[in-house]
Amino acid sequence: MEEKYDVIIIGAGPAGLSAAVYASRAKLKALLLEKEYVSGGQIVTTTEVDNYLGLPGINGFDMAMKFREHAETAGAEFTEGKVLALKKQENGCWCIQTEEKEYQTKCVIIATGATHRPLGIPGEERLRGSGVSYCATCDGAFFRGKTVAVIGGGDVAVGDAIFLSRLCKQVYLIHRRDNFRAAKTLVDKVQQLENVKILWDTVPESIEGEERVASLCLKSLKDNTKTELPLDGVFVAVGMEPNIKGFPEELLEEETGYIKAGEDGKTVLPGIYAAGDVRTKRVRQIATAVSDGANVIAAVEEYLNEEK
Amino acid sequence: MEEKYDVIIIGAGPAGLSAAVYASRAKLKALLLEKEYVSGGQIVTTTEVDNYLGLPGINGFDMAMKFREHAETAGAEFTEGKVLALKKQENGCWCIQTEEKEYQTKCVIIATGATHRPLGIPGEERLRGSGVSYCATCDGAFFRGKTVAVIGGGDVAVGDAIFLSRLCKQVYLIHRRDNFRAAKTLVDKVQQLENVKILWDTVPESIEGEERVASLCLKSLKDNTKTELPLDGVFVAVGMEPNIKGFPEELLEEETGYIKAGEDGKTVLPGIYAAGDVRTKRVRQIATAVSDGANVIAAVEEYLNEEK
Repeated sequence: MEEKYDVIIIGAGPAGLSAAVYASRAKLKALLLEKEYVSGGQIVTTTEVDNYLGLPGINGFDMAMKFREHAETAGAEFTEGKVLALKKQENGCWCIQTEEKEYQTKCVIIATGATHRPLGIPGEERLRGSGVSYCATCDGAFFRGKTVAVIGGGDVAVGDAIFLSRLCKQVYLIHRRDNFRAAKTLVDKVQQLENVKILWDTVPESIEGEERVASLCLKSLKDNTKTELPLDGVFVAVGMEPNIKGFPEELLEEETGYIKAGEDGKTVLPGIYAAGDVRTKRVRQIATAVSDGANVIAAVEEYLNEEK
Repeated sequence: MEEKYDVIIIGAGPAGLSAAVYASRAKLKALLLEKEYVSGGQIVTTTEVDNYLGLPGINGFDMAMKFREHAETAGAEFTEGKVLALKKQENGCWCIQTEEKEYQTKCVIIATGATHRPLGIPGEERLRGSGVSYCATCDGAFFRGKTVAVIGGGDVAVGDAIFLSRLCKQVYLIHRRDNFRAAKTLVDKVQQLENVKILWDTVPESIEGEERVASLCLKSLKDNTKTELPLDGVFVAVGMEPNIKGFPEELLEEETGYIKAGEDGKTVLPGIYAAGDVRTKRVRQIATAVSDGANVIAAVEEYLNEEK
């Protein structure tokens, strides 16, 4: 068994890194456990972030680097490892099991974020990486001068369509409803773009192609007509799912699958906290994740003080 | 009566400016009402901010400028004015009365923050600005090579003592208890400084001096002995009070005087929201204020959508 930590933070997105800064400044014995050496979470693959106060119009990758450097400068300790299980010990501590080893800690902050939801249609999984993408920022450049579709109606989908319109010959933005959930500024912008065609009330039924994506089969929800759209790429932007693998089921909110926790990050299990996109919250933004990092360390400190 | 706004944000600290960024991006008809042309709130007078993720070790004034510029770039509309009253109109809108004019708006975000609490002892008010200060960052330079006292036991008090130790010959840190509430990193640091003397279990009773501060009268809470400390300046750092002048009393939490509101900023009055330090919350930090700005605009958008 390893030495005992005050707190282990799982995940190196904005919530985890902010928590690491606060933990370091509070001189807690803290460890940040990240699944791979690429901090930043979802922001790493975001083209431009413009709504985190103080860093206007910043590239997501640069922002992730800034965030990581800040945590390192503050003195945070990092290690890599995938969490397999989280178990209560007889001594009241928690044991985190990873593929390589076990960690013992008084508190755990789950800041594992959320990941892209698949469409679940034929061809999607088979052609993933061969024309099917979940990240326009990462893969857009491979589709220069080509024809692509974006599926979805939120900020990410509309933002992706705008981004891809600069690279691609033609962009189809396909949405199952007749209006977007996205911010009005984005919606106004995408509607002005000549090479973006919006297909309302339309759902994708399958992705076709041998070695690579060749076409997308669509169905109109208005009249059930089916069409096949010849294209080179499909960008899926239909939302997120919380990353909760390896964590006790009792932590989860039944309806949504997110970890049930309020502003202070406290879960139903004493010593276990949730911060950032993985917890039940209304607004999943960088600003709210960073705030969670501050709030959760205050709660952890209180817990540790009570213990003595 | 003026044109009608979707939302008027009162206060230009981190919460108000973040709300302005989000309101602008959501294309709401928004106005930011600030009491003077110095945005940033408390951070303007903070030496160094090191815990807002992505902007390590930044001077508070620079940070305030960055925040304001961000809101301006996003397209936020600013105006100056002191709020006298906030009243519900018959048409369901809110009327904000300032000294100069009246504004009509569907929603109001109160982001007025909190201000320094006075000691309430003889001499304090009379010698304010003549040796009595509430901001070491602003006034510290006037006490170069002199002897000063800092009153308080939180992050600000201990941080002020550290800051002043670099400028002053001698710093007394005076606290009514026998331990600090401040972060352990700060406490460790201040205890290592040769020219900082900590007086535990001690309260100030009066500030003496003709034209300027000459001495501070103290009482030990342990044995009631009184001492008079000759010095040149007294820095008061004993906490904050919410800025709630002009707002309906029913908004306030009775015990604390802060505006009662959760993470989404909703108050007991429909259309009225609170964000940042002025609302009931556990952790008052720049990060949590900026997060409030994002959360509150989501709540405002929802309110405005329901209205139609």
